[in-house]
Amino acid sequence: MAPTKLRVGCAGLGRMGKRHALHFLERTPRAELVAASSPDDEELKWAKVHLEPFGVKLYKNYDDMLKHEGLEAVVVASATAVHAEQAIKAIEADKHVLCEKPLSTNVEILSKSQTVVDAALKKPHLKVMCGFSRRFDASYCDAYQKTQSGLIGRPSVFRSQTCDKLDPTGFFVAYAQFSGGIFVDCSIHDIDLALWFFGDDAKVKSVSAVGITAVEPDLRKHNDRDNAVGLVEFHDGRIAYFYASRMMAAGQEDSTEIIGTKGKLSVNTQPASNLVNIYEPTGIRREIPQHYYDRFEWAFVTEANEFTAACLDNKEVPLKIEGAVKAVRIGCALQESLITGKKIFFDEAGNRVEKSNL
Amino acid sequence: MAPTKLRVGCAGLGRMGKRHALHFLERTPRAELVAASSPDDEELKWAKVHLEPFGVKLYKNYDDMLKHEGLEAVVVASATAVHAEQAIKAIEADKHVLCEKPLSTNVEILSKSQTVVDAALKKPHLKVMCGFSRRFDASYCDAYQKTQSGLIGRPSVFRSQTCDKLDPTGFFVAYAQFSGGIFVDCSIHDIDLALWFFGDDAKVKSVSAVGITAVEPDLRKHNDRDNAVGLVEFHDGRIAYFYASRMMAAGQEDSTEIIGTKGKLSVNTQPASNLVNIYEPTGIRREIPQHYYDRFEWAFVTEANEFTAACLDNKEVPLKIEGAVKAVRIGCALQESLITGKKIFFDEAGNRVEKSNL
Amino acid sequence: MAPTKLRVGCAGLGRMGKRHALHFLERTPRAELVAASSPDDEELKWAKVHLEPFGVKLYKNYDDMLKHEGLEAVVVASATAVHAEQAIKAIEADKHVLCEKPLSTNVEILSKSQTVVDAALKKPHLKVMCGFSRRFDASYCDAYQKTQSGLIGRPSVFRSQTCDKLDPTGFFVAYAQFSGGIFVDCSIHDIDLALWFFGDDAKVKSVSAVGITAVEPDLRKHNDRDNAVGLVEFHDGRIAYFYASRMMAAGQEDSTEIIGTKGKLSVNTQPASNLVNIYEPTGIRREIPQHYYDRFEWAFVTEANEFTAACLDNKEVPLKIEGAVKAVRIGCALQESLITGKKIFFDEAGNRVEKSNL
Amino acid sequence: MAPTKLRVGCAGLGRMGKRHALHFLERTPRAELVAASSPDDEELKWAKVHLEPFGVKLYKNYDDMLKHEGLEAVVVASATAVHAEQAIKAIEADKHVLCEKPLSTNVEILSKSQTVVDAALKKPHLKVMCGFSRRFDASYCDAYQKTQSGLIGRPSVFRSQTCDKLDPTGFFVAYAQFSGGIFVDCSIHDIDLALWFFGDDAKVKSVSAVGITAVEPDLRKHNDRDNAVGLVEFHDGRIAYFYASRMMAAGQEDSTEIIGTKGKLSVNTQPASNLVNIYEPTGIRREIPQHYYDRFEWAFVTEANEFTAACLDNKEVPLKIEGAVKAVRIGCALQESLITGKKIFFDEAGNRVEKSNL
Repeated sequence: MAPTKLRVGCAGLGRMGKRHALHFLERTPRAELVAASSPDDEELKWAKVHLEPFGVKLYKNYDDMLKHEGLEAVVVASATAVHAEQAIKAIEADKHVLCEKPLSTNVEILSKSQTVVDAALKKPHLKVMCGFSRRFDASYCDAYQKTQSGLIGRPSVFRSQTCDKLDPTGFFVAYAQFSGGIFVDCSIHDIDLALWFFGDDAKVKSVSAVGITAVEPDLRKHNDRDNAVGLVEFHDGRIAYFYASRMMAAGQEDSTEIIGTKGKLSVNTQPASNLVNIYEPTGIRREIPQHYYDRFEWAFVTEANEFTAACLDNKEVPLKIEGAVKAVRIGCALQESLITGKKIFFDEAGNRVEKSNL
Repeated sequence: MAPTKLRVGCAGLGRMGKRHALHFLERTPRAELVAASSPDDEELKWAKVHLEPFGVKLYKNYDDMLKHEGLEAVVVASATAVHAEQAIKAIEADKHVLCEKPLSTNVEILSKSQTVVDAALKKPHLKVMCGFSRRFDASYCDAYQKTQSGLIGRPSVFRSQTCDKLDPTGFFVAYAQFSGGIFVDCSIHDIDLALWFFGDDAKVKSVSAVGITAVEPDLRKHNDRDNAVGLVEFHDGRIAYFYASRMMAAGQEDSTEIIGTKGKLSVNTQPASNLVNIYEPTGIRREIPQHYYDRFEWAFVTEANEFTAACLDNKEVPLKIEGAVKAVRIGCALQESLITGKKIFFDEAGNRVEKSNL
Repeated sequence: MAPTKLRVGCAGLGRMGKRHALHFLERTPRAELVAASSPDDEELKWAKVHLEPFGVKLYKNYDDMLKHEGLEAVVVASATAVHAEQAIKAIEADKHVLCEKPLSTNVEILSKSQTVVDAALKKPHLKVMCGFSRRFDASYCDAYQKTQSGLIGRPSVFRSQTCDKLDPTGFFVAYAQFSGGIFVDCSIHDIDLALWFFGDDAKVKSVSAVGITAVEPDLRKHNDRDNAVGLVEFHDGRIAYFYASRMMAAGQEDSTEIIGTKGKLSVNTQPASNLVNIYEPTGIRREIPQHYYDRFEWAFVTEANEFTAACLDNKEVPLKIEGAVKAVRIGCALQESLITGKKIFFDEAGNRVEKSNL
Repeated sequence: MAPTKLRVGCAGLGRMGKRHALHFLERTPRAELVAASSPDDEELKWAKVHLEPFGVKLYKNYDDMLKHEGLEAVVVASATAVHAEQAIKAIEADKHVLCEKPLSTNVEILSKSQTVVDAALKKPHLKVMCGFSRRFDASYCDAYQKTQSGLIGRPSVFRSQTCDKLDPTGFFVAYAQFSGGIFVDCSIHDIDLALWFFGDDAKVKSVSAVGITAVEPDLRKHNDRDNAVGLVEFHDGRIAYFYASRMMAAGQEDSTEIIGTKGKLSVNTQPASNLVNIYEPTGIRREIPQHYYDRFEWAFVTEANEFTAACLDNKEVPLKIEGAVKAVRIGCALQESLITGKKIFFDEAGNRVEKSNL
């Protein structure tokens, strides 16, 4: 008798939705993509060609998909604005949930994101995970295991950056009004990594940030910047600092350093697309990934497989949903500091305090 | 209606056979592994756990598997000694064939390997391909495309090496009696790459080789060496030179340089397992793949997918079977030169000549 | 007739004093080391062996050395506490001055360092330079020229770090009481580089910093930290951020990235002592410089030669003394922010302001 | 009393002669350049500006310079054709000799070069050294020390290449008639390195070589090639193989790998001019040295200093002159094999043998 496969539905078939759908259809042996939904006709048209012939039932309406016979898990890959709502509905319908990051993008986080957590807590038999793909990247996993093994002593300083290739179409200006800002959209990954390496119980003591608009002044309309640096201090004597940019010439430059008391690990500080070097009259050149999916394609596939395994084998998911909320919270504080120019302080309980109270 | 999948059987379930079987079972969306065969009970036991539950029918006898209802293609991953025979049987049974390298290992090449070619030529509707996995590696493919685009001018000198990590168990001594020797077992990949980059019509003018037993003198019993360097001259004014070793300390070191009249491409001259660097008191370290499968796993998967696509879509296979025979022929000549110490010359028709005749 | 050589005296023969003396004695063809002074008997003993036999006159008293017949220039390489005083005396005695960094280390900067500047301004025929050796490093010079040529557009974000190898003797704890703190002692170089790449007229808008004592809690006694990150915002829409550490496992890790609107330059983000790679069972390793002199030896030699050329040929010195004061000022502000935890704001005239006034 | 300096004369003021003269004038503290000679008026004109003002006496005639009062050592940096003759004259005049490579370029080696050795042997109090600059390069020295310490076990396979940047003026075609051929002109350095790492007593068993004219067919007129690969087998079970080229696009690519039974060392397999990386839309680029002097400038300076120290302190010179003759001998054998296409065999006494006799 063939082993059971996890029956998955995919909500949203935009850029990442299409990828998630295909990952579950073709590259997750223990899962079966049984359904997909999108309110968008263009997206459904694509799905008729690429999903339907393989037995995937298509829905225009998310709620209808949730009722699909035998559906066990949902990937929420729709517009960020509905992430929280769709995740909660799925939980209520008793489905496991893999939700694209971020859970939400703004100050309503305490309501929106928290309700996802609340919903999840009520149904502990469900696997609810936020899609921080980097945690599934082979290099980050290797660095994490080495850190856990004690190779670098106590991780104490964490430097990480998410830097996109410059998109001269200015796409990211329009995008800025929905993205939550550069710290919530880009640095959220670095923040999540910091929490992973420092431990989920690391408590923020202060955040401060500065930013500029070096190439796209119009971002200021949406309270955003194209380059920003943020500094996060933790109560247990650790520091994380982040750089985010929309201005890289060469490509996607996401790199991280974990500096411990006995050593250091770096991830992707020498980016490369592959193992080719090009020798030409101007020197020696290597090409690098152009976009985050070039860099993290396999991390997304691994994520799909590990989420599937957690659901089928009733194992703990590698990321707790509470951590995702915490990451958004830090990202929003950095974004606020970026805009106001003020340093923000927190006590160990996570409440804001004035400096004079510390 | 679900699109058709290629129905594949896997012959041989040894180390590589297991991998091929799983690649077709789990990582080749357009293929369906329907059958597998092995004369070995241990291997069949493994298959009962890992293949049978997923609908794969197991056979102890290869000939029986060939009669499996609906079988369309066979992966020949059995012992090298039966590669040629099984490939021919499959062709005669009207199956597409993906045959692990090498087609054969010795001087009977002209009979054994050539009969595979002859069999294939009689059935041009069949796809018959020899598994030179490196041709499917992303970095080699990138280098090839760049070369084809003219980036480095005319490829003129080709340096390539296949160097295994030292296996202190001495496994490779016992293995040497079947392997055909270091040039046939290891350098065959480099030779195939040279033919790829120089063009399949490149004609060998001379070969010469030297070798030593630096760590395993017992290899001499089997007319083999643990380190060998070979030099191949082509009639059209090009040179390829190869290094093969069983003695690498750090891991698998397979690297290649393609030197053209206007530039150079290198592949894997700075090996790395992933994007992590380790900073420790002794310096900065990176880990590298330990074995060929660490390095080429994805190339094998891509090979399975491209072979499948060629069969289903009736496209030409990326490697002609004649090239595989040519590669073995060059490997055997290098091995002969290694043992006799003599330089061997060929005319443009491929016949051996004495130097004085040139 | 032999060309004139610059007659140089060296004040201070401690670790760096010895090096400066030897650079001028042996590696600066257009200079002649004619005198050296130190109040320390051990240092003078060393000088009797290494300097005196080559015609260098030794003095126990700095003021006496200043009167040395024909002396034209002085290298101030004594204890930091007397840098400013000795520099002023030399200027008053009408000597060119090359003064080791920093001019001073603390809040008296406005008095002490400024008086050096004032003294220098009164004697414009003298060359007065502060020894920021990195400006003479071949890689930094190359990066600077490339930046000036427009290769990376407008430099907008500057990341730089000065990170020492962990010294397990705890030497730097005792040293901390004189050093001025980690931002003044280490980051001063990075700050100077930022001013070089951004232009000396870049005006600081805000600074904020955080730090920890990950390995040496006793540093807190001297208001210092062993790891610190600082953030400097400029009024013209640029950002510089700095990391300083006493905790590196592998060696000296001083690296810099200059991120422009059209490209990026990195300096030493892949440190290496030389061109050797070591392949061993644990992977591939390269060794890196252990101390700043390992890394910057040639920069110091170049500095000596360029200072000499400026004096002899009456050319402008490559670094204005005012810049050195500015760098100390920024370093002190970062150090203050590190200790108070407060972000500090400045108006365009360089005056401190409260945030609410901006 | 000032320590004694070695009084040096420089014979020949061509491209390398000028450099040697300046190295001894400015960058060799324990030496004093007292004289220089050249038959060429242009070269003497240059010397009037750059050497004479610093007390260097100029001679049009080499023999006259040898009589310069107090002269102790001679650098022979003249045309290769007179290397041997001038070296012998200097030895006869009782001077230490540093002679540019090669001692001679052709089959007369047994007479010409050997007479230098004979002359040197008669005067064991003189230091006579052939200028194989790579032995003084910091990276090669580091690799050598690591090898001597046992880090890589027994060095068994040696790969080394000397590859020049393509000079589109075709200069090297005219040069080929004097150079002795690509193996004598370029690979001589790699051969010397092989003898260094394998031990000067390594005995050649066979050589074979192939070459092509990929960019400059006219080289065939002078029995030369623009790309050549040579294979040298030693009687003690070791292999060295060499690649030489005049066709590199990116710059000078001189790299070496020393493969031992327990590890490997590579030198310059990732060339770089400095520590700068350039990030631009086409990827990440580093520049590399353009010519051998870019790469080995400091090795030449170190050579001058170490030769001087050997003379003054009566220490053994780091390279025996006999080794230089051996290197030329191997280079000539490779060049012969390149042209005739034949493999050449030697017995342990160094005599040529026919294969059938081995």
